Order: sequence, then C-alpha cells, then structure tokens
Amino acid sequence: MSENKIPYKIYLEEKEMPTAWYNLRADMKNKPAPLLNPGTHQPMTAEELGGVFCEELVKQELDNDTAYFDIPEDIRNFYKMYRPSPLVRAYCLEEKLKTPAKIYYKFEGNNTSGSHKLNSAIAQAYYAKKQGLKGVTTETGAGQWGTALSMACSYLGLDCKVYMVKCSYEQKPFRREVMRTYGASVTPSPSMETEVGKKILAEHPGTTGSLGCAISEAVEKAVTNEGYRYVLGSVLNQVLLHQSVIGLEAKTALDKYGIKPDVIIGCAGGGSNLGGLIAPFMGEKLRGEADYQFIAVEPASCPSFTRGTYAYDFCDTGMVCPLAKMYTLGSDFIPSANHAGGLRYHGMSSILSQLYNDGLMEAISVKQTDVFEAAEYFARVEGILPAPESSHAIRAAIDEAVKCRETGEEKTILFGLTGTGYFDMVAYEKFHDGQMDDYIPTDEELAKYRAMLPKID
Amino acid sequence: MSENKIPYKIYLEEKEMPTAWYNLRADMKNKPAPLLNPGTHQPMTAEELGGVFCEELVKQELDNDTAYFDIPEDIRNFYKMYRPSPLVRAYCLEEKLKTPAKIYYKFEGNNTSGSHKLNSAIAQAYYAKKQGLKGVTTETGAGQWGTALSMACSYLGLDCKVYMVKCSYEQKPFRREVMRTYGASVTPSPSMETEVGKKILAEHPGTTGSLGCAISEAVEKAVTNEGYRYVLGSVLNQVLLHQSVIGLEAKTALDKYGIKPDVIIGCAGGGSNLGGLIAPFMGEKLRGEADYQFIAVEPASCPSFTRGTYAYDFCDTGMVCPLAKMYTLGSDFIPSANHAGGLRYHGMSSILSQLYNDGLMEAISVKQTDVFEAAEYFARVEGILPAPESSHAIRAAIDEAVKCRETGEEKTILFGLTGTGYFDMVAYEKFHDGQMDDYIPTDEELAKYRAMLPKID
Repeated sequence: MSENKIPYKIYLEEKEMPTAWYNLRADMKNKPAPLLNPGTHQPMTAEELGGVFCEELVKQELDNDTAYFDIPEDIRNFYKMYRPSPLVRAYCLEEKLKTPAKIYYKFEGNNTSGSHKLNSAIAQAYYAKKQGLKGVTTETGAGQWGTALSMACSYLGLDCKVYMVKCSYEQKPFRREVMRTYGASVTPSPSMETEVGKKILAEHPGTTGSLGCAISEAVEKAVTNEGYRYVLGSVLNQVLLHQSVIGLEAKTALDKYGIKPDVIIGCAGGGSNLGGLIAPFMGEKLRGEADYQFIAVEPASCPSFTRGTYAYDFCDTGMVCPLAKMYTLGSDFIPSANHAGGLRYHGMSSILSQLYNDGLMEAISVKQTDVFEAAEYFARVEGILPAPESSHAIRAAIDEAVKCRETGEEKTILFGLTGTGYFDMVAYEKFHDGQMDDYIPTDEELAKYRAMLPKID
Repeated sequence: MSENKIPYKIYLEEKEMPTAWYNLRADMKNKPAPLLNPGTHQPMTAEELGGVFCEELVKQELDNDTAYFDIPEDIRNFYKMYRPSPLVRAYCLEEKLKTPAKIYYKFEGNNTSGSHKLNSAIAQAYYAKKQGLKGVTTETGAGQWGTALSMACSYLGLDCKVYMVKCSYEQKPFRREVMRTYGASVTPSPSMETEVGKKILAEHPGTTGSLGCAISEAVEKAVTNEGYRYVLGSVLNQVLLHQSVIGLEAKTALDKYGIKPDVIIGCAGGGSNLGGLIAPFMGEKLRGEADYQFIAVEPASCPSFTRGTYAYDFCDTGMVCPLAKMYTLGSDFIPSANHAGGLRYHGMSSILSQLYNDGLMEAISVKQTDVFEAAEYFARVEGILPAPESSHAIRAAIDEAVKCRETGEEKTILFGLTGTGYFDMVAYEKFHDGQMDDYIPTDEELAKYRAMLPKID
C-alpha cells in the first residue's frame, strides 16, 4: 500500500484483536533466571508462590515454554471497552521536526486509568475472582497501576486495597479520589498498618516512601489476610505476558500496511510496557526471522539498566518478596524525591534483564528536564499531554528522528506512548516554574547500595 | 447486519469522516431570532459583528440558508489527530441495568482538552489565523473550552488569553497548568484587568464569578486590543455548526449498521454538544424524513429551558455583547457556588431555544447528587470516568433505559458523552464525602432575575 494511504490512526477491528497473549520466554534461548526463595535461595515452587499469587498467575509466572496463552473471553470483552488502542502515525511531529524518519506510536492512554496498566490489571483481577478470592492488595507509585486495578476490581466485584507511595499520595490527591470512585481503599506508604511499614518508619522517619516499601506492605497485607492475594503491575513475567497485547496489536496494525519498524523504543521502570511492546518483534529477532533495534529509556535518576548490576536482589525494601535476578540499583535505593518523572523502581524485569545482558537490546538514560521539554513539545505538536513516564520514550524518539534529519536516514521509529499526564500537573508546574532539577546519583551513592546486594551464586 | 455483529466501539475510517459541517438552520422553518445590537435593538450587521469575531465566523454566524460549509483541509487534518471519536455500544451498562433498551454513546473525551470543545476551538482559531490576527481571547468555566482553545492556538501559533471563572480557577488549579503547557495565559475572572471586571468586583466583592462575567471581560479585552478577536465555546450558531461533526459522525456510524435511534439525549449548558449531536437527526425530522425524540438535560440549579423565559437577553453579565433571543434565567443569574456539575450558563443557544419553543425537542432538569450517582455508576460499569456535565445525559439515559425495563420497550437510546472528569475530582470528592447538596433556585429568586430582563418587542 502506498505511503500516503496510511491514516493518522490505525485502529484494528475487533475481530483483529489478539485472542492469546504471547509469552516471549518461549523463544528465549537463555531463559530468565528463576525467582528464589529468600530463605533457602532455592527456586520458588508453585506452591510457595501460591501463598502470594493466584494459582493461574503462578502458572503463567513459571511457564518458560508455552508460547501462547489464550485470553479468556471475559477479559477480551473487557479489553473491547478500551481497546484496540490506536497506532498513531505522528505526521505532525515529523513535519515539525523536519525529519525524513517515519514515527509511529502505540497510544495506551485512552482509558480512565490513563495507561497500559489496565491490560494486566483486568487479567490479574479476573484470575483472583475465578479462584473465589475476596480481594487483592497492591502498591502504586504514580497511581496509574492503582487506578487500573481499582477499575478492574470494581468491574468484577473484588475488594481492592492499595498502598500508594507517600510522595505520590501527596502530589496526586486526585488519583486517590479516582480510586475511591472505583471503590478502592488507598493508604499512603509506609504506613502503620503493617509490621514492615512500622519498621521502615522507625528506621527512616519522614521518608517519602518508595515502590519497594509499598510492595512490602501490600505483600504482608495479602499473606496475613484470608482470601487475599497480592498483585503487581510490573516486573513480573506474568505482567509482561499480559502486556504483550500492546505489541501484538501494534504488529498487526503495522503488518496491515506493510510497515516494518527499524527502531522500537519504550520507557522502562519495571519493564511492563517495554516488555509488552517489544514482545512479538523480539520474538522474530530471537527466531532469526527479522532484526530490530530495541531501546529501553530510563531516567538518569534511577538508572537500573545503564548503571545497575545484573544480580539477584530483593524486589522490595522489606525483603519479604522472592529474590529476582535483574539489573538493579539495590533494594534500598530510593530515587531523589525531586524526581517527578515516574519509573522510580530500583530493579527491572528479569526477562528484559536477560535480553539486555545477552546484547539483544540497548538502554539509555535521560535527564528529567530533557524529558519534560520533550513532553511539552509533543503535547503542543501532537495534541496529547503525555505522562512523564511515557515522555522518556518521546525524548528518545525525538532524538532519534533528529539524528535521521542529520544523516538523511528514513528510519521507521515505533515508540510506546504509555499514558497521559492529566494527574501529573504538579510536575508540569514545577517544570514551568523552573523548579525541576536533574539530580543524578553519584558513583559513591550507587556503590553503597551495590555493596548491600545479597550474596547469591 | 445482525445485532450481534455490532462491535463495542464503532470507529469510522478516515475517509468516512465528514468533509462539511451541517448547518441545521437551513432546514428550520422558523429561523432562530437574530442577534440584536444592545444599543439600537436592531439586528447586528456583519460589520458590527466583525469588531468582535473573525470575518469568516461572522458569515457562519449569520447564514441561515447554506446547508453545508466545507471543512478546510487544515482543520480536517487536525481532526484526524483525535477524531473520528468512537460511537460506543454500552453493552456492559445494558447488562447491568437488565434493560431491553440498546444504549449507544458518542464519546468525545478522548483528547487532551477532555471534551468535544476542541471541534469548534480549532475551527475558530483557524479562521483567526487565516485572517492574520495575533491572538484570541475567551472565557472558560469548567476549563474544557479554555484547554481546547489553548491546544488549537498552540498548534497554529496564535496568542491565547483565557478568563477563567474564579470558582473553577480555584477548584481546578491543574486545568490552568494544562493551558499553560499549551502556552496560554489564564486570569481568574472577575479580574482587575478590565473595566467590566473592576465594575463587577466593586458591585459584588468576593464573587466567585460566572460565565457571564468572564465573557464580558474576554470581549472587552478583544475589542480594546489591536489584532485580537473574541471566540466563544458555546451558544453561538457558528459553534453549533462546527459541533455538527459529532452528529454527522454518529449518524454515519449508525447508518453503517442500519441502526435508527428512538431517543437522542444530550446535556445542555449553552447547547454546543446537544446542538452538534442532534443536528443531522433534527434535520431529518425538520424535512419530514424521520422522527426522533430529543431530550435536553440541564441541571436543576440552572434550569434555562425548564424554568427560564424565551426572550431577548444579554449573553453576558457586563451587557457588552449583542442581545440574543433564548431561553434564559436572566444575565445576572449565577447558579449556587455549591453546584459543581458544570452547565452554569444563564442562557441557551438561539437555535435550540427556537426548536424547543416549536415543540421539536423536550427538556428535563436533574439534581446534582443524582447526576453524580449516575456518574459513579457509569464509571464502574463502562470504565470511563465522565465529566459532571456529561453525566447529566448519563442520568437521563439510565432513567430512560430503566423505564424500558419496566415497560419492556426495546428502545434505541443515543446519548452524548461529551467528556471526561479527570479535572473534576474535587467535585467527586465532595460527592464521596456527602458534602454535595441539591440547591434549586426558588420561584422568587427566578422571578427577581426575570423582572430584570431587557424589554424588547
């Protein structure tokens, strides 16, 4: 099909939507390292994981071989309320940048949670409901995951208990109100509701919290309450599996128009969006069917890939979770409170960590003010007000397109626009008022936390 | 096509998008009454209006005969960034309500301004730019129109000056920040920046403002600054013309599947959404080609249609604008500050007023807490967090569907879901905390303002 026939937005028809999630691990030669029991340092068994997660999700978590998991009909119907998400050709951005590059983005922000997180939230809530549970607990940072889970639980009639990182809770009062609209209870973390919360508050009074703390509290709440399980919005294998719907839709849309991306870019905090977006493309690369350049973009203030260590580490500050092998800054690392751009998690998905370690993917880090500059630029040109997290990918995509302008290369760039920034206006305000800085951790600081990594063979 | 083939969301293809706006006035036997010069009480001439509005928009405002106006290519391209908007089949809502009714809604919230307002904002900014103007001034209440205009101006490189009703400015600090992201300047109204603002503040110190006040300030600013014109987000004939894109898309989508709505419902403040949604359907009714039931839904606290007077009145509190014949509560009427549900304008589109007066359309009013109940219910069932304004239509649609459950009628209901409530969480919080009331103006109060209407034959 000729170039000028490509619409501004490619929407798949309902019948073209994926009916199965794609499990990238099935095509990986080097499988991601298994989760370890924090006590014995032995691989976690399904039985052990079953105390924390639903049965079906444990299966998905541990299965490195099955390539496709059918999406249950109820989940597919829920997806139809806000999916397929549009694959957008950024004509206006291309024109403004005067680049020969062709830029596409998969926009996941057109739902009330404001991000891609809903794709996994509904899946995790569905399996909890199916198992006859009363409810689920979780943590949330920027609030997108908590909102997504609240929506999914409200739809299915499950109880939902959210521990929200304290600095976000204070910066984003309206996020709490949205979760409340969906019937969830929201507690700022660390809290006095859990033993681990009390301990963290005693050791670090006045802490603004971290995802790692909030995870510990949510896990404790789940394992100490009958009929509850813990759910997590990123990092885990099961989450990347669910998020493959992003990449599958994107690939179907591109294939319809005979477009093959050269570069695929995504922001990376725990890796859920990036892992989902790249999944089917990386699958082709792993099977030797096609080649793509993959770029993970992380904040310079929380540089897990670019300055972290590939090692077993705790997933949470309270060290109640299993150990995961991943690129990590250490489970005690907490990014500067001034960092408003999300992606604050100390570690990274084991799948993505393995791919990065195998040289199948690149990573770069970007500074906060550069991210917000890109965000504002993008908002004015493409109309969409992006989430700070997503804007990391925008920054990298713009830089790549500008390089093309200089070299004359007509690359096709695909990036993930994970969500909208409607609840991030405090951060935008700081940016407008010149009160945002680019704090980057020093080598000494990183070395300190690196030295605290658990010693595992 | 059989019933079960109708998808959750009907998206038109780009080539199916309207290429011309439909001017409902061309098919009206009783034309809407002309705007009058506030001094002479004679119909406003194109020349007089040209001091306030762009030339092209003056033409659109005054033309009661041309049925279609071509949409310029630049505007059509801008539309492609966020349109076509989905026509959604509310399967989940139908199931939850156990109604035999079929419910559809045209969802205009999937853009950064969060509402349908962008449809007219880009048109008005385009014509201002084409005329070589420097910038535009406007007022905004809930902030959706101001945001929309900021986006359009930023895209076209026009200066944008927004007077924001003070109570909204205070309730919605983040709206201001979004407008700032798009480079607009935002002033709480009434302000000391204009003569009319000073006068209003002197007479009513401590007033929380009203749309009527803000309009007066914006008009004054435009007419006293070289190279500026005033633009308005509702009420005017030109705005309803631009908003016909909503109805045209909706009708094309329904026609594709052979669906004919029985009832068409929209919220009504100034009438822009309702007028746009019903336009092509009302056209058929006026031409005797089809019949539909139309229902305007307004807040009980600002009941222009249901308790107002059909008379010439000022469009603004400062009485600097032309007089319009409309259903009005009087230009000095300001709804209770407790009313958080939007649609606070004292008057109503002249087109809709004429149709209502001719018995071609019905109107009902709904109470604030009933509106928020419907909003929360809808959010939980359909996933979308609706704007308070839109939720007036949701309330009426749900009530209609429940009636169908009782009578067994399989009516097809179409309503306009004009926008999202992400910036309305203060109102939702009040609702959750039980601090919202249902203030309704007394007959004495309404009589007082009715007595102040200008005396025109």
